[in-house]
Amino acid sequence: MASRSRLAPVLRRVAIPSWRRPATATCPAMCVTRGMSSTAPRQLRESSARSAKYTSDSYPEIKRDSRFAQITKEHVDYFKTLLGKESAVVDGVTAGVAEDDMEPYNGDWMHKYRGHCKLVLKPASTEQVSKILKYCNENVLAVVPQGGNTGLVGGSVPVFDEIVVSTSRMNQIRFFDDVSGVLVADAGVILEVADQFLAEKGYIFPLDLGAKGSCHIGGNVSTNAGGLRLLRYGSLHGSVLGVEAVLPDGTILDDLSRLRKNNTGYDLKQLFIGGEGTIGMITAVSIHCPQRSNAVNVAFLGLESYEKLQQAFREAKSQLGEILSAFELMDSESQEILHKVKDNKRPLEQRHPFYCLIETSGSNADHDNEKLEKFLEDVMTKEIVADGVVAQDEAQLKALWSQREGITESVGHWGGVYKYDVSIPLQDMYKLVEDVRKRVEDAGLKGETDEYPIIEVIGYGHMGDSNLHLNVAVRRYDKKVEEALEPYVYEWIKDKNGSISAEHGLGIAKKKYIGYSRNETTVGLMKQIKNLYDPKGIMNPYKYI
Amino acid sequence: MASRSRLAPVLRRVAIPSWRRPATATCPAMCVTRGMSSTAPRQLRESSARSAKYTSDSYPEIKRDSRFAQITKEHVDYFKTLLGKESAVVDGVTAGVAEDDMEPYNGDWMHKYRGHCKLVLKPASTEQVSKILKYCNENVLAVVPQGGNTGLVGGSVPVFDEIVVSTSRMNQIRFFDDVSGVLVADAGVILEVADQFLAEKGYIFPLDLGAKGSCHIGGNVSTNAGGLRLLRYGSLHGSVLGVEAVLPDGTILDDLSRLRKNNTGYDLKQLFIGGEGTIGMITAVSIHCPQRSNAVNVAFLGLESYEKLQQAFREAKSQLGEILSAFELMDSESQEILHKVKDNKRPLEQRHPFYCLIETSGSNADHDNEKLEKFLEDVMTKEIVADGVVAQDEAQLKALWSQREGITESVGHWGGVYKYDVSIPLQDMYKLVEDVRKRVEDAGLKGETDEYPIIEVIGYGHMGDSNLHLNVAVRRYDKKVEEALEPYVYEWIKDKNGSISAEHGLGIAKKKYIGYSRNETTVGLMKQIKNLYDPKGIMNPYKYI
Repeated sequence: MASRSRLAPVLRRVAIPSWRRPATATCPAMCVTRGMSSTAPRQLRESSARSAKYTSDSYPEIKRDSRFAQITKEHVDYFKTLLGKESAVVDGVTAGVAEDDMEPYNGDWMHKYRGHCKLVLKPASTEQVSKILKYCNENVLAVVPQGGNTGLVGGSVPVFDEIVVSTSRMNQIRFFDDVSGVLVADAGVILEVADQFLAEKGYIFPLDLGAKGSCHIGGNVSTNAGGLRLLRYGSLHGSVLGVEAVLPDGTILDDLSRLRKNNTGYDLKQLFIGGEGTIGMITAVSIHCPQRSNAVNVAFLGLESYEKLQQAFREAKSQLGEILSAFELMDSESQEILHKVKDNKRPLEQRHPFYCLIETSGSNADHDNEKLEKFLEDVMTKEIVADGVVAQDEAQLKALWSQREGITESVGHWGGVYKYDVSIPLQDMYKLVEDVRKRVEDAGLKGETDEYPIIEVIGYGHMGDSNLHLNVAVRRYDKKVEEALEPYVYEWIKDKNGSISAEHGLGIAKKKYIGYSRNETTVGLMKQIKNLYDPKGIMNPYKYI
Repeated sequence: MASRSRLAPVLRRVAIPSWRRPATATCPAMCVTRGMSSTAPRQLRESSARSAKYTSDSYPEIKRDSRFAQITKEHVDYFKTLLGKESAVVDGVTAGVAEDDMEPYNGDWMHKYRGHCKLVLKPASTEQVSKILKYCNENVLAVVPQGGNTGLVGGSVPVFDEIVVSTSRMNQIRFFDDVSGVLVADAGVILEVADQFLAEKGYIFPLDLGAKGSCHIGGNVSTNAGGLRLLRYGSLHGSVLGVEAVLPDGTILDDLSRLRKNNTGYDLKQLFIGGEGTIGMITAVSIHCPQRSNAVNVAFLGLESYEKLQQAFREAKSQLGEILSAFELMDSESQEILHKVKDNKRPLEQRHPFYCLIETSGSNADHDNEKLEKFLEDVMTKEIVADGVVAQDEAQLKALWSQREGITESVGHWGGVYKYDVSIPLQDMYKLVEDVRKRVEDAGLKGETDEYPIIEVIGYGHMGDSNLHLNVAVRRYDKKVEEALEPYVYEWIKDKNGSISAEHGLGIAKKKYIGYSRNETTVGLMKQIKNLYDPKGIMNPYKYI
């Protein structure tokens, strides 16, 4: 088999001490590659950036809650006195504020959501957050906690005139223990800053995602962000050891445990992990960080069926075991689109129905190389994998990752894209793409000429986490396409006990669809928790459940 | 250095496909080696087994809650009709039941706690549990959920006449996916049964503990058990993907997600993980299981100071990285006691102030051997480690583990032992042992002759998890010893932001000490949760918070 010779002699692989993919946070195109969860069909072009509609117009069914007070000069004066610093208050209530100054707080980076906020507060301490929330609760002023504002479901963007409470000035690393790997840091520490701090100590933040250059770790924890390291390091529910959070009534929950084991009562912090700021505001986080790996390898493989892809995943888990750090899936259609748009060199000569990208991270480059070679030989010999290449240097490593990361940018090239970020048990996962593709073909919606709205239906994502990105590339927005997709996709996911939001949360985008992933009883119990902690409903209203 | 020659030529190590330590569940002595958390000074001798005092006598301050109804024939008839099977009800209310039949439900394996329960129910389904709890709630009958009843803090033992609801008949494995490693099983499945099932599939249950042959996975999750695999696989808060639980009012929380990612609302299941059956009863669990390792190595090392022990841990994490699966600490005093009682061969010729046991588990025996050898050479060259041996076969491997596991049995040899299972940030952890030792020496309580109550103060435990077992071996129970230890130990732990219960939970044993590890605000918020879910207080009363 010709292809095997390309794989076999892996003579020169790279061992990169503090290896990481290029920072992508300031580049929306790259951020998108980590999966946008929107269900709306808008294509996010530069031209639309300045003309983002108000969320209140996109969601006309949402009305401002009349229980909330209007912000007055008296309120603003209180906050100014409390925070004591001009720069800590962006005041559009009593003073004129340039739209550009307010826009970063009122909109999201995708320009999909836009609020009418007129007051931004930037407390510098937990005590200040406590006083702000207590005052807001007493005066029934609605609040939106905001970190780096890099979310994908509008969770950190105000809808009406909610007060934004930003963590941007709370950005200190409070503690690190280089024996246990426990880090305690303010909510406003930027993820990449935390990770770079840890890199110098030989540790790694157990979370990695596209927005790492902007997102705040408090926001990550509030969203229960998933990202690229989950396969290896697990979810934040396991790695977060403690949180400090302020409840709506100003109560400070000081649960910043630095211990991996602490079995003394209900693990309340878990409610704030993924609570999206609806029951309180996280002001600091304690997290257990793993050792950083010395060696990283990447292989890109072609496979003939989804069945074989599952076999390859099973073998990778078994043979690569403790060094497997990513197993990403891409279908043929996604790679064709990438190739059309980017016109880049294909890693493999032949085309295959499926591709996967496998990354290993370990403490010994020689061992990892040997394990990977053995694995590749095995899966080729067993004809699980049809063809493959392994990166020989860092440039190739990045090039292979770009086959996965470049998809989302490319898929929107022709006009629009319907995007779904879902989790489905592995054996059924790709069938969603096939069923949707067949459905739109049967409906006469997909074709090669301009009369058809749909160009292609593609699937890719984190195979290791059962996390699929279903994308429908369209030439134009078409009501018929939307009707073919929804509620079909949600019903399909519900039928397989999947999740309509794997890693991005609910925010405003998924609020009304929660019933497809959670039964009435569970949603009822969630509302009970919300009412318990936030009886006046001031925390991040109009969202979540 | 003579000792290095013993370490260097590691020619023949064992690679054991489904390696595990010998099952110890049926042997109390061995169970004890996994750390008993009692604060009471009783020595658990066979002679005391049959004469266990009633908990209501040991804790005279606890009175039966008069809100709870007395169990009547009518109640019993309802349950008999509901469960429909003679063997599903152990009825000491309307029928005479031999004490031996009731004893396993009324007492714990340590014979420390003993209740007055007269009715045991063994539902076979979640629906039956739901009907039982609903009925109990309506009739204000108190309930104790019970799994394998292997807990260490009396959490699963009734105090007065609470009805025991046993998971023993709910023991089916419902689902396993050998691609994702997701297991869904009834709460009553025995941990070892689940693990053996998984071993056949090449997977491992992400929890291992001494009582594995008896404990139920539902109980493990309710207790948030820690055990021996936490260093490698993290806590149950991360690995448990879903629970099915019945609330006191009969509501079934069906949250048996099989997904690693599901960001749709508050993660309510987390409240039940470590909730000790106080807000509901877990009836099934969904859990993510890792690949089983092919190769296991064990090294036993001697070190000159706690400082060097920390350095060795840091190096082990760095150099052994992804294959490190245990790092256990033992002080010199613990090994001296073991040697005195067991008279076994010491692994090392010289004596050292500290010892550690390092275990590696990986997918490739050659690689693991090489990593371990390199590490050992490095820490010896740097003089972090003074001496050491590596197991060459399975017998040696077990012998080395027995140096750690034999301690708890040995320490009670002379009459009694005060035991504390605590978590303290690593840098301060061992200082607790030194301070306690000095304190009792200064008080003239420790010495070599019979006039001194204390024989020795020892420390050992899971260094990898910052989990210390502080044990005070005594010749006899003495009020002066108790006064010297408490509240001193708890205050010491509080001062270092440690936990008074690292892995065993609160139960009845630690209920009154929670204030040393949790502040008033946090305890208040916990009570709020308890009242929300269980307003009549019928679930596992007199315990927890």
